[in-house]
Formats: sequence, C-alpha cells, structure tokens
Amino acid sequence: MKKIVTTLFILGCTAISQAQENNSAADSAMMASIYNEVMLHGECYENLRYLCKSIGHRLAGSESAQKAIDWGKVTLEKSAADNVFLMPVEVPHWTRGGYEYGGYTFSGVQKEVALTALGGSVGTEGKRITAEVVEVKSFEELKALGEEKVRGKIVFFNKPLDATLINTGAAYGGGYPIRGQGPSEAAKLGAVACLIRSLTLADDNYPHTGATNYEEGVKRIPAAALSAVASRQLSQDLKIDSQLKFNLQLSCEAFERTMQANVIAEIRGTEFPDEYITVGGHLDSWDIGEGAHDDGTGIVQSIEMIRALKAIGYKPKRTIRAVLFINEEFGNDGGETYARICKEKGLVHVAALESDGGGFTPVGFNCDISDKQYELAQSWLPLLEPYNLFRFRRGGSGVDIRPLKDDRIALFGLHVDGQRYFDYHHTNNDRFENVNKRELELGAAAMTALVYFLDQTGIPAK
Amino acid sequence: MKKIVTTLFILGCTAISQAQENNSAADSAMMASIYNEVMLHGECYENLRYLCKSIGHRLAGSESAQKAIDWGKVTLEKSAADNVFLMPVEVPHWTRGGYEYGGYTFSGVQKEVALTALGGSVGTEGKRITAEVVEVKSFEELKALGEEKVRGKIVFFNKPLDATLINTGAAYGGGYPIRGQGPSEAAKLGAVACLIRSLTLADDNYPHTGATNYEEGVKRIPAAALSAVASRQLSQDLKIDSQLKFNLQLSCEAFERTMQANVIAEIRGTEFPDEYITVGGHLDSWDIGEGAHDDGTGIVQSIEMIRALKAIGYKPKRTIRAVLFINEEFGNDGGETYARICKEKGLVHVAALESDGGGFTPVGFNCDISDKQYELAQSWLPLLEPYNLFRFRRGGSGVDIRPLKDDRIALFGLHVDGQRYFDYHHTNNDRFENVNKRELELGAAAMTALVYFLDQTGIPAK
Repeated sequence: MKKIVTTLFILGCTAISQAQENNSAADSAMMASIYNEVMLHGECYENLRYLCKSIGHRLAGSESAQKAIDWGKVTLEKSAADNVFLMPVEVPHWTRGGYEYGGYTFSGVQKEVALTALGGSVGTEGKRITAEVVEVKSFEELKALGEEKVRGKIVFFNKPLDATLINTGAAYGGGYPIRGQGPSEAAKLGAVACLIRSLTLADDNYPHTGATNYEEGVKRIPAAALSAVASRQLSQDLKIDSQLKFNLQLSCEAFERTMQANVIAEIRGTEFPDEYITVGGHLDSWDIGEGAHDDGTGIVQSIEMIRALKAIGYKPKRTIRAVLFINEEFGNDGGETYARICKEKGLVHVAALESDGGGFTPVGFNCDISDKQYELAQSWLPLLEPYNLFRFRRGGSGVDIRPLKDDRIALFGLHVDGQRYFDYHHTNNDRFENVNKRELELGAAAMTALVYFLDQTGIPAK
Repeated sequence: MKKIVTTLFILGCTAISQAQENNSAADSAMMASIYNEVMLHGECYENLRYLCKSIGHRLAGSESAQKAIDWGKVTLEKSAADNVFLMPVEVPHWTRGGYEYGGYTFSGVQKEVALTALGGSVGTEGKRITAEVVEVKSFEELKALGEEKVRGKIVFFNKPLDATLINTGAAYGGGYPIRGQGPSEAAKLGAVACLIRSLTLADDNYPHTGATNYEEGVKRIPAAALSAVASRQLSQDLKIDSQLKFNLQLSCEAFERTMQANVIAEIRGTEFPDEYITVGGHLDSWDIGEGAHDDGTGIVQSIEMIRALKAIGYKPKRTIRAVLFINEEFGNDGGETYARICKEKGLVHVAALESDGGGFTPVGFNCDISDKQYELAQSWLPLLEPYNLFRFRRGGSGVDIRPLKDDRIALFGLHVDGQRYFDYHHTNNDRFENVNKRELELGAAAMTALVYFLDQTGIPAK
C-alpha cells in the first residue's frame, strides 16, 4: 500500500470521468456537490455524538425518548427545513427496572452469567426463580421433549446464528423466531422461564436484547438473552451437571401506553409539491447502550440529507421529508401511524428510503420496487459506482417505511456492509465510539444522492 | 431490521440459485465449500491473535521479525503445505530507540505533543533540537519561502489528506510524497528538522510512522510525524506565537544490514506443476502497535488459503504458493528478492495475488492485467457476486508482488472496504482488537476462491 495508490488514484479519476461522459453533466456535478458537502461540512457525526452522549439510549415511552424528540425537532429546524412538526404517536411504556440477575452453582462455584431481559418480558415479582434448565436448539426439539420434561423448568434455546450466510441479516433472520416466539412456546409446555442465546455472530460477553412477542392466551413467563460466551459455558456445564439450578431475577415492569411523536421535516417541492419522498430512520432505541448503529445513524443521516440539500441550494421538484420515527423496536407504532395518517390525508408518496442497518460503509440500496422502477434505478448505477455504490438489491427496504407500501411507491433501504452490525445490535456496546465518521458520512451522502435521482426523475408508478 | 430479513434471506437464496444455474455446478460447489470451510473452521483469526499478541510488531531486521519468520514456517507446515522453505533476504536494520520527545512552551504552558519518528530518520544525537517552526502545506510553499526563512528552523508540513476522495488509498497517495521527500526538501533550504502531519483521515491523537527517503547527497535531518490533533494544535498556536520554540528529541539508530527471509509454502500442481500462482502479504510491520491490519491480516489470509485448499481436499492443477514477504515497509527487499530469484530459476508465474489493504470486508479485487485477462476475470463475477464481491478494479495489485510483473503474469490485490484502514495504518492502534473475525475470514475465503478460478482456467498470457 505505497506508491501503487497514486496509480489507483489516477485510474479512479479516469473511471469517474468515463462514467460522467455517459451521463448528464448536471447529475455528475450534483453528485460531487452532495458528496463534497457531506464529507467536508457534514454535521451528522457531531449530531450522533450529541444524541448518544448527551441523550443516550431512548426506549419509546421513556423520558429520554421524549428528550430525543425535542432534540430532533430543534436539529431539523437548524438544518433549515421549510417546516418541522410533530405527529403524535401512541407507544408502549415498559421498563427493564434496575435489577437483573442470572447465575447458577456449578461444581461448588457460584457463576454469574451475562444476561438481559428481552424487551416486553414480565419480571419475576421481586423473587428469584430457581429451576433446572432444559437446553434445546429448536421448537421441534422442544416439542419432542413434551410437557413432562419441560414443566417447572427453564427452557434454554441455544442455537447459534448460521455463520456461513454472507449476509448477516439473513443469519439474524434465522434466529429471529426463537426470540419472538420462544417464551410462549416454552410456556405452553409449562416452563417457568425462558433463556435464549443472543442473536449475534460475535463470540463475546454482551447479551443482546430485543422484543419478544407473547402469544395471546398463553402464560407470560420471564424471558432473557444470555451472551454468546455465557450460552456456551452454560451448555458445557449442563453436559456435566444436567440438574444444575439456574437462578433468574428480572425487575421488568409494564405501564400504560403513552403519547410520544414522530418528528417530520419538509423541503417543499417547487414543481410537484403534492408528490412526497420520505426519508427516515427510527429515533427510539433499546434501553441499553446508546442506540448508535440502531438507529442513531439512520436518524442523523436523514437530518443530514435535509441539511446538505439546503446547504448546496438544491430546490427539489417534489416535497422531500425527513421522518424520525418513534418506536420501531417495540411495535412499529411510528411507522404504522405515519402511513395511516398519510393515507387519511391522501398524500401521494412516490418513494421512501430508510437507513436502519447501521452506519457502516454503504455498498448500494435494498429495494422493494417494480420491474419498471428497477430498470430506472439500474440506469443510475454508472453514476453511483465511482462512489462505491455497487448495486440495487431487491427484497426489502425498512420496517418504518414498509407500511407506506401501495401500488405506487418505490421503497428503498440503505444497503451497507453489515458484517459488524449484529456485534453491536441491541447491546450495551452499541455506542458512538463504534461508528466511523467517514462510513457514517458516506451513507448520508449516498442517501442524499438517491433522493436527488428520485426527485429529478419522479420514479414511475408500478 | 426485523422481519424484513427473512424476506431478504429468501430472495438472497434465490439470487444465489440463479447465479449458480448460469455457471458450472462444480464451480458453485467449490465456492460454497471454500466459504463454509473458512467461515466455520477457519484458523486465520486465531493465527492473527498469536502473531499480534505473542510476537507483536516486527520491523524487518528486528528480533521479533525473526520470531515471526520462525512462526510463519511452523504455521504453514501445520497447514499441511507440501513443502515449506525459507528464502534468505537482506534487509535494513533500524531502530526507533527508547525515547521520543516533542513539545513547546506556549503562553507559559509546556505542551507535549504526540509524535513519532518517521522510519529511517536519523536521531538527534542524545540532545534536544530547539528551533522555531515554519509551517507549510506543500513543496511549492516551502520553496517560495526560500533559504532565508527556513535556515536553522524546523519545517512543519501540515497538509490534511483530501477527505472528498472516496477511496482512502487515493487520499493517502496525495500525502505520500511529503512523508517521503519532505525531510530532504526541508534540508536543502537549511532546516534542522522536519515534522509532518500524519497521513490519516482520522481526527485523533495517534501519530503515524512510515518510511521517509533521504535524497542522496542531502544532509539527513531528524523527521517525525505529529498526530492529527497535535498538528492542529501546533498550527493554531503558531498563528498566535509564530516564534515559539519546538523541542525535538529522537533516539533512532541505523545498523548494518542483516539477513532475514521470505517464508514460502507450496501445494504442488498435479497437471502443470511448472506454472505458479503466488499469494502473499508482508510479514514485517512497523515497530509500533501490532501490525494487525498492516499486514498481519494479509499473512494469516495467505496461510488460510493453503490450509483451506488442503482441508477441502483440493488438488490444484498448477503450483500454488503462499509467500510471507519480509520487509515491504522499508525497501521492499522481500518482493524484489523473490521476483529476482524466480526469474533466475526460470519459474513461470501465471498469476499473483496480494492482501495488503487491511483485514476489512472484501468488495472485489484490484487488478493489473491485460484486456484479455480482464474479460476472463469479469466472467467469474456472477459466481462472486452472491458473496458480495462486486468488481475487478483495474489499476494495482500489491507492493510485494509487483516486481513479478512481466508479459505473462496477471496481478491481483484483495480490494476491501478501506474507509478505516488509514485510521490504524502505521500506528500504535493497529491492533488485533481492531480486526473483525468475519471480515478477516471473508477476505481469506475471497482470496481462496480467486486462486481456485485462476488455477482452474490458467489465465491466458497477455
């Protein structure tokens, strides 16, 4: 990596030049303008520092989520949006409480394990649950054991994610049903609590929280995630002492649902103000760590999109919105409410874009679009490729914007290099320090560039 | 990032299936076999841990570089290579010594700054140099000042890398001449020492070392790199007190050149054993930090390529070599010696591949190849793309393998997401902890896959 870079630089410039010749000079100039603005004068990194360090984690329904809403409104106003307003959203209110304990005595030694309650779990009513543990890898294995072997025990789902899947989101998807349905499946067979191996590909001692979904009519049992290291150790110890007693105490509590808000900023369109392009992320996070990659980065990138377009003096044809959605993590209330109200008001959305895969280097965009829309998007690739945006990957967009889906809209998600995402996701380690400034900024610039193309062409209906 | 991943997963599988239909079943099966072997049973991460933590940094000529050579030989033998041998290489022997100091008094306060000697710098002969500082951004600016304003002073090159360049290697290339030639250019005008702003895009307090090249016949003056933060502070202070006195002490020392070795492992070809494919990285590192990304990762990936091919029982047609080159950083002796001896022995190389851009997520391969070879490489992309390998980027390969260049050989470099590379490069922070296991393994698997294609097709001569 020495002199060779000069050659690469010259060749890189040549590649950019060639791509530019094939496309309009105006588009090229706008791409350069966007990237230069974000990379040289970007505010998203400092905004993220504030959100993470001065507000911190912000579970929907909490006081800190309310602080984040207030901060979001002020920050969007400073970014020179034409107007900024709040949209009330009803959200749940659950707290982890101040105390969590998991441990057991093995071979005469008391072992405390790293665990954390799953989001929405019931608590243990101020007591410690003490019970034997049955370890399984799947629902099938659990059902095969039957009520006789499960009743009165703690079910421990210990299934590692599939490391051979290149896309970490696919690996996460494979483990997702256990977190959601595991506790109710265990309760159906009389289990007194449920433990799961954290949904991560990392081999470390951080437990990963995330929502669990109790099934209607099934007893709600306490549920927690063990770190990968704790899961391995417990499994090893169970092989030697299958009757060891696990102690679990959780102080979770659920309260009445409460009102919070989506924060919405607009740049009004000059030619087609009634056609909307919505760009967003979710302002809420889990209540451990700082919600940096999930999804502080999507929030500050959406704000940066507004700021950068205004800073370079771009006058959009269509109305462009940044939406800071509240409560993606625990019921998607912000996304559902936004889509419902947009429909009630008869707003026509031509496109929406979400960033909720972490603030890592972008490699392109995920998309949930028609063939005709895909063809158009593909035609932008020669201009995107010099910025290391390689592809439109069909198949998804983002949880918050998905309720907008109709016959008209083109849905996109920022497609990043997600290898590290599930190392941090829903943990105490999802912190500002683990976000790289350039990677974050490249994502913001890529989003702004896509908004520019969507606004210019007004992507066709399906 | 919730249920959407399941959809992505299904669609991802469909995409893989479609790509497979377009290519031979054998190639697809081999790709899967390689990736599964490396992602599930890979040893590169644990090898990197040993290299970084038990051997540590390993400047060519040092005792620890010799330990790394011994370790490399044993590790390649364990990886079941057909034969492993050393190739003697003469290398320089320079040490930083135990003491480095930079500081100045500003507004009555003594400030110590983070700096480190450039590789090859002379020392200050046990004394502190004390002199005024002239700050410049370029050689042109320095020359415009002239001898009158420079003589007796310390020249401070304070030019940040260009953050608007998407490829960080290009930004580094823009700053590279100052580190190489800055000290001699300053000395020509009578400067007593030279300071440079570290070649990095990060805004932190780590100074970055790297080779400087004294010009023949020009007085050798002490030269050091300041961290980005220290550079900014010194520059600010100089604006207020242009006559502040900087104190510099370096204890560097140069010794006689010494003999070390490239480590070479082979799997002998079964059909065309006289056609060679060389894969490598450089075993030496700078003498601060642990040389993790530069280039411990390239070393353990090259070893993993041998191990994985053997583990899956692949019998190559051509002879495949892993070469752990010694001394890339300080004169490229390993690469030059290897190419010279291969030529003396009449060895025919069809291809070579280097990993020296850090152990980050791969996105494709850089290549220095003919149009005909490029066309062939492009035909492999449909099989590579499901593994997120997006492109062959023309323009470079690697410093160690470049001396092999002739009319026949196709040269490749692993092309990774390099946004973080120059945050760690040549610093005390280039450590094992900053390498992600999956990113490292994906690089090793990508390299092994390319070797498979090169071996199967025997890339044509130019």
